[in-house]
Amino acid sequence: MTDFSVETLGLYTDYYELSMSQGYLLSGKKDESSVFDYFFRTTPFEGGFLVFAGLADLLDALTAFRYSEENLNYLKRLGFHTSFIEYLKEFRFNGTIFSVREGELVFPNEPILRVEGNIIEAQLIETLVLNILNFESLIATKSFRIKLACGEKPFSDFGLRRAHGTGGIQATRAAIIGGASSTSNVQAGFLYDIPVSGTMAHSWVQSFGDELTAFREYVRFNPGNPILLVDTYDTLRSGIPNVIIVAKELEKSGHRLAGIRLDSGDLAYLSKKARTMLDTAGLPYVRILASNQLNEYVINSLFEQDSSIDGFGVGTELITGKPDASLDGVYKLALCNDIARMKISENIEKMTFPGRKSLYRYFDAEGNFFRDGILLEHENPDSCDFIYNPIYPDKWTRVAGLGRELLHQKVYENNEISQPLPDPLQCQKYLFSRAASLPPEHKRFIMPHIYKVGGSTELLNLRDQTRRKIGENFSEN
Amino acid sequence: MTDFSVETLGLYTDYYELSMSQGYLLSGKKDESSVFDYFFRTTPFEGGFLVFAGLADLLDALTAFRYSEENLNYLKRLGFHTSFIEYLKEFRFNGTIFSVREGELVFPNEPILRVEGNIIEAQLIETLVLNILNFESLIATKSFRIKLACGEKPFSDFGLRRAHGTGGIQATRAAIIGGASSTSNVQAGFLYDIPVSGTMAHSWVQSFGDELTAFREYVRFNPGNPILLVDTYDTLRSGIPNVIIVAKELEKSGHRLAGIRLDSGDLAYLSKKARTMLDTAGLPYVRILASNQLNEYVINSLFEQDSSIDGFGVGTELITGKPDASLDGVYKLALCNDIARMKISENIEKMTFPGRKSLYRYFDAEGNFFRDGILLEHENPDSCDFIYNPIYPDKWTRVAGLGRELLHQKVYENNEISQPLPDPLQCQKYLFSRAASLPPEHKRFIMPHIYKVGGSTELLNLRDQTRRKIGENFSEN
Repeated sequence: MTDFSVETLGLYTDYYELSMSQGYLLSGKKDESSVFDYFFRTTPFEGGFLVFAGLADLLDALTAFRYSEENLNYLKRLGFHTSFIEYLKEFRFNGTIFSVREGELVFPNEPILRVEGNIIEAQLIETLVLNILNFESLIATKSFRIKLACGEKPFSDFGLRRAHGTGGIQATRAAIIGGASSTSNVQAGFLYDIPVSGTMAHSWVQSFGDELTAFREYVRFNPGNPILLVDTYDTLRSGIPNVIIVAKELEKSGHRLAGIRLDSGDLAYLSKKARTMLDTAGLPYVRILASNQLNEYVINSLFEQDSSIDGFGVGTELITGKPDASLDGVYKLALCNDIARMKISENIEKMTFPGRKSLYRYFDAEGNFFRDGILLEHENPDSCDFIYNPIYPDKWTRVAGLGRELLHQKVYENNEISQPLPDPLQCQKYLFSRAASLPPEHKRFIMPHIYKVGGSTELLNLRDQTRRKIGENFSEN
Repeated sequence: MTDFSVETLGLYTDYYELSMSQGYLLSGKKDESSVFDYFFRTTPFEGGFLVFAGLADLLDALTAFRYSEENLNYLKRLGFHTSFIEYLKEFRFNGTIFSVREGELVFPNEPILRVEGNIIEAQLIETLVLNILNFESLIATKSFRIKLACGEKPFSDFGLRRAHGTGGIQATRAAIIGGASSTSNVQAGFLYDIPVSGTMAHSWVQSFGDELTAFREYVRFNPGNPILLVDTYDTLRSGIPNVIIVAKELEKSGHRLAGIRLDSGDLAYLSKKARTMLDTAGLPYVRILASNQLNEYVINSLFEQDSSIDGFGVGTELITGKPDASLDGVYKLALCNDIARMKISENIEKMTFPGRKSLYRYFDAEGNFFRDGILLEHENPDSCDFIYNPIYPDKWTRVAGLGRELLHQKVYENNEISQPLPDPLQCQKYLFSRAASLPPEHKRFIMPHIYKVGGSTELLNLRDQTRRKIGENFSEN
């Protein structure tokens, strides 16, 4: 399903990518070189950062971006030219991709991915790039926000049932990158080798004549690490009293009940009540897990109320990236036939940066993230002493002498992935290490401080020249 | 990817479905019969209805719900018992499913799907049922709301780039069911045989030295039905003047420009300006399409402002089902071992209906939808004269003598789909015919009138008895 390798994915695209590509072919532009940038404009969730994710899934998909006989027959039926169908027969994406690492913290307008190739191959993959990177980055970001709220307490992804169809598999991958310690999603566990976990559903309890028998039977067959769901009938009057009976019985057989799960009602109130009941019964080791419409704000509030919760299950809000549900990432042409290209817009914020660009991160004396700078790729970063706010160029920062890091790595070339990519848990580790260097004011939920991203003098000059040249063709009305 | 038939989908589930199923096996319950209901509690988008969708994808997936050798080895590594692994080797879902039709209008708490089977098979498919039906129904509902706003004007799905990964394929299917006339998503077009369409991207225009050349080249290779994107540089000063030149040139060669697409700026203002410019140039036949962050409310507002827009491209909001992004559908045990089962909750609204149930629709004298009634399956509907509000039983409706329809059909039995299922466009047609019988007050966007759903006396009695019996086990505290 999300095992892209078994599919031919050439049709995983918007129709206009194909009609434009046919146009490029027929108008003799097929060998023109191009550079496209992937970037986003607005940080999701009114937050201060984006966690970049989806790269490994994207590159896997690219290796399968080709056309089967059946795909080509379909395109023929749609009316595409024979010469274009012929061209697609042998089509492979042979371009080169530079990208920041998965789990990296990135910011608006940064060229996160730079795709270089002929205009057809670079155009045809646009939809796939956007579909995968926009979504996984959205979910990884949501997940990390939840992790920030949870602090040291773990949380698990419970979202598959509310996910967007098969997108739930990729969502789980991104949730792990962002900070979830495990998932209920077994298919994702299988495909991506990530930890799975789970408790029980109400149906287990209902399927027995009574709750006590249901609990006894459950621990009988899961003596290792059982967690009992306590709200099928009544948490305090039925669930917890039955848990106490079963936990005591387990002790006699040398086992310990791992925990209980609260799944409805007021979690702050019920967790404190449950803690007291369990402690009074001599069961201080029984952990209390909570689920039910959680998100970073609810979890924050549960901590503020001194709830007795040891871990969280987060479903809908995590797996759908609520309330945003989408990231506004775009894929824009920056260079074609070695000529700088840009889109102009009614809004100056929506103008794009032309040219082949590199992304640098500058560090302050303590090693914290200080500024990001966008330079033209041929520029020597040692000679770039200042970076400028692209909209208000009087706002600038001196970056000469600061520690810096090139964030782009080559990740795809000659129709294959350039280097082994980290798995989701490794990406999570990388994210946590990077997040430790992001000053806290960028991580707060309410009105976070804006992280500054600037451009070099050369870049801004190129943009202004390109724009002027285009404007000369406008009519007067 | 969403071609479920090539996959073994047995791991497409939450971990606890597997651990509970193992428990059912080990505790000797594997042959106990069960009935589960799929239903939702809250209409999405604060609307008055849900458009049910996802059935064909679900049933396709069920035929592939089995375990490969590799899947079983994975479960072994996770620590599942050998006897359970053995059991799964030959596992197929052999239960029976009754469902309302795709494209049907349904309402909160109605048993949309009734799944009957042994407790293991009915439990194992829970996550798959929820994952597919919740999502496709959400998107079909959003799509139909957009259709209600568009009226006679067509709209197209442009959402793949903002969709939730591969879930975008299923989203497009649902968007068509709900009313979209076409999609940009070629993979969905290929898999589901639905109409695809598209225009051009900014990159086409940018890739040429100037906009006029770009337009000329595009129509040269797409003379049949070209639509030109006019906002790459400046809609009124560059885009439309260039369109007029090219349209006039096309006329000389015996062709006609199909339309233009506006994709930024104020769509009401620009469409009226563009209409005037085109009409003045003698091009009244050139249609104006609009896209850019549209939804049902924006489209309503564009009509109120007398915009000159002939068709819409809707992306993000449609394909992600914003702002809700999820439907709260659940799957609850109603009968096990022929004994009625229910979940009790702190909130009376969240109590479930026990027993094997049928769903009827009653019609008024004009043939419009009047009430829906939930009866026990063995009840003779001719003998059911009244239905009652499940929470306030003093509120009742006399349904004796009204026209009625059983909404459940048998759709799956003996490990196969019972009857050929309609394709997405057929479902759309069915939806439109049904919607014509739903009184308009249930279709309005603001505070819609609530459609009434009641239960039979027998059903409510069963619920109250079951609940009392469970309560007798509670402790006093």
